[in-house]
Amino acid sequence: MKIVIIGIGLIGGSFARDLQRAYPEAALLGMDQDPGHLDQALSLGLVRGVATPGDLREADMVLVCIPVGSLARELPGILSQVGEETLVFDAGSTKSLICQAVAGHPARRNFLACHPIAGTEFTGPQAAVEGLFNGKTNIICEVELTAFRIQERALEVFQKLGMRIRYMNPEAHDRHIAYVSHLSHISSFMLGKTVIEKERNERDIFDLAGSGFESTVRLAKSSPAMWTPIFEQNRENVMETLDEYIANLQGFRTLLEQGDFQGVFEAMEQTNRIKDILRGIPTPKN
Amino acid sequence: MKIVIIGIGLIGGSFARDLQRAYPEAALLGMDQDPGHLDQALSLGLVRGVATPGDLREADMVLVCIPVGSLARELPGILSQVGEETLVFDAGSTKSLICQAVAGHPARRNFLACHPIAGTEFTGPQAAVEGLFNGKTNIICEVELTAFRIQERALEVFQKLGMRIRYMNPEAHDRHIAYVSHLSHISSFMLGKTVIEKERNERDIFDLAGSGFESTVRLAKSSPAMWTPIFEQNRENVMETLDEYIANLQGFRTLLEQGDFQGVFEAMEQTNRIKDILRGIPTPKN
Repeated sequence: MKIVIIGIGLIGGSFARDLQRAYPEAALLGMDQDPGHLDQALSLGLVRGVATPGDLREADMVLVCIPVGSLARELPGILSQVGEETLVFDAGSTKSLICQAVAGHPARRNFLACHPIAGTEFTGPQAAVEGLFNGKTNIICEVELTAFRIQERALEVFQKLGMRIRYMNPEAHDRHIAYVSHLSHISSFMLGKTVIEKERNERDIFDLAGSGFESTVRLAKSSPAMWTPIFEQNRENVMETLDEYIANLQGFRTLLEQGDFQGVFEAMEQTNRIKDILRGIPTPKN
Repeated sequence: MKIVIIGIGLIGGSFARDLQRAYPEAALLGMDQDPGHLDQALSLGLVRGVATPGDLREADMVLVCIPVGSLARELPGILSQVGEETLVFDAGSTKSLICQAVAGHPARRNFLACHPIAGTEFTGPQAAVEGLFNGKTNIICEVELTAFRIQERALEVFQKLGMRIRYMNPEAHDRHIAYVSHLSHISSFMLGKTVIEKERNERDIFDLAGSGFESTVRLAKSSPAMWTPIFEQNRENVMETLDEYIANLQGFRTLLEQGDFQGVFEAMEQTNRIKDILRGIPTPKN
């Protein structure tokens, strides 16, 4: 089996680790526009060599794990180079624009639009970890546009990696992911920004910060290069989530201002049931 | 050694575990206005019996681990009942009002105003864990108002529990903790509220939520009973943090609206340095 990984960062690299373990005989080759990352990926043994266009044509599987702006731009070209039976899939955190970018492509049947709900706040090949996808959910969009035999092979791979599957249409995906992921990242970044601006003496942050603070700003360590194109592509949905979130924060501020502590109590109590919803979600590995 | 723990929840219970381990011969007794909690604390072995007023007078140490509203109200009465050499300390997340409540009390010298930066999002005696305070920071306010010998004994205890000490004045504590803790809790609650309101189908939250989302709403599982009095007592500071945070979120929304993605990138990049600040902070135990 020949596997090409385009973009050997956290996601590409972690897929590399799991795929090599699941398919020990597979030849894993990589491509990365960052020569430093490519070198690191090779020395870390994530891939065994650099992939050529010929490798794309012969590949059984091509993973495209690059920022979503580049994805939309590069995917059509990649699809034009793969073989008849090559499975190509992505891991982009937005899906509408990506699906639009390949709509009607002669090799659309080779492509499976995916969003594996997995990651950490770290980046680059050195961030790659084993088992990142185990127990996680993979969102698949427009599955009906992927050739059936190629779908089947993909599902087999995801199953081997321990992923459960959820099918969604790309617009619905982008709407919901704005609330359940994109907003969290913005809240973290802006919380971090607020604290850094006001807490001039970083000693104070360090001394007073506990695991609660750490949880809420953890995502502020995320890669701006990865997240800017995501917010750009999902701009309308993200702006909507911000409007809702800001309105809720303003509402809470008003309750405080009015001294309505019964209201404050109830606002928090109603949200407590997030406990039950979160129960099934894997907690971050430390 | 006789130790009385008033309020045997997450904090009181965790102190109980660590103190019993550090002082195996100590007799730990408890008080709790919730009879259910008291029963649980007894059956979990957190304390060996129920404390009486007589026990307060004879105690070497009294820990008052109750919500900050009750603290301000009950502390003067507690101080009036303890012995000459009894060390009394609290664990309240606000300090100004609590210090004011006991200012000038004849037994002020027995009291050490503390805020151990430790906790989880869980509550009650069943939430008590061992080692919660190990490696954590304990903020001590107005240390000069506590009798020297009593201070010394307190520091010895905190050292045994693995805590490092930071001294602050109560007003400064409340100002800074608003940014580094209280705002995080509100951001979490309001994020949870926003998602619950918009994601009517909880299946969608469950399927799309990863560890990033879990991190940012984890604190929304916190106890409204604990947090309402904290926000009430620290109201002015908390409103200020909300104003700053909301302004930052609105600023980010404006950047998106204007399509200023260079600005978006930079806003996130500037916050990335939170990485270095957070490096020293213990991550949540799972």
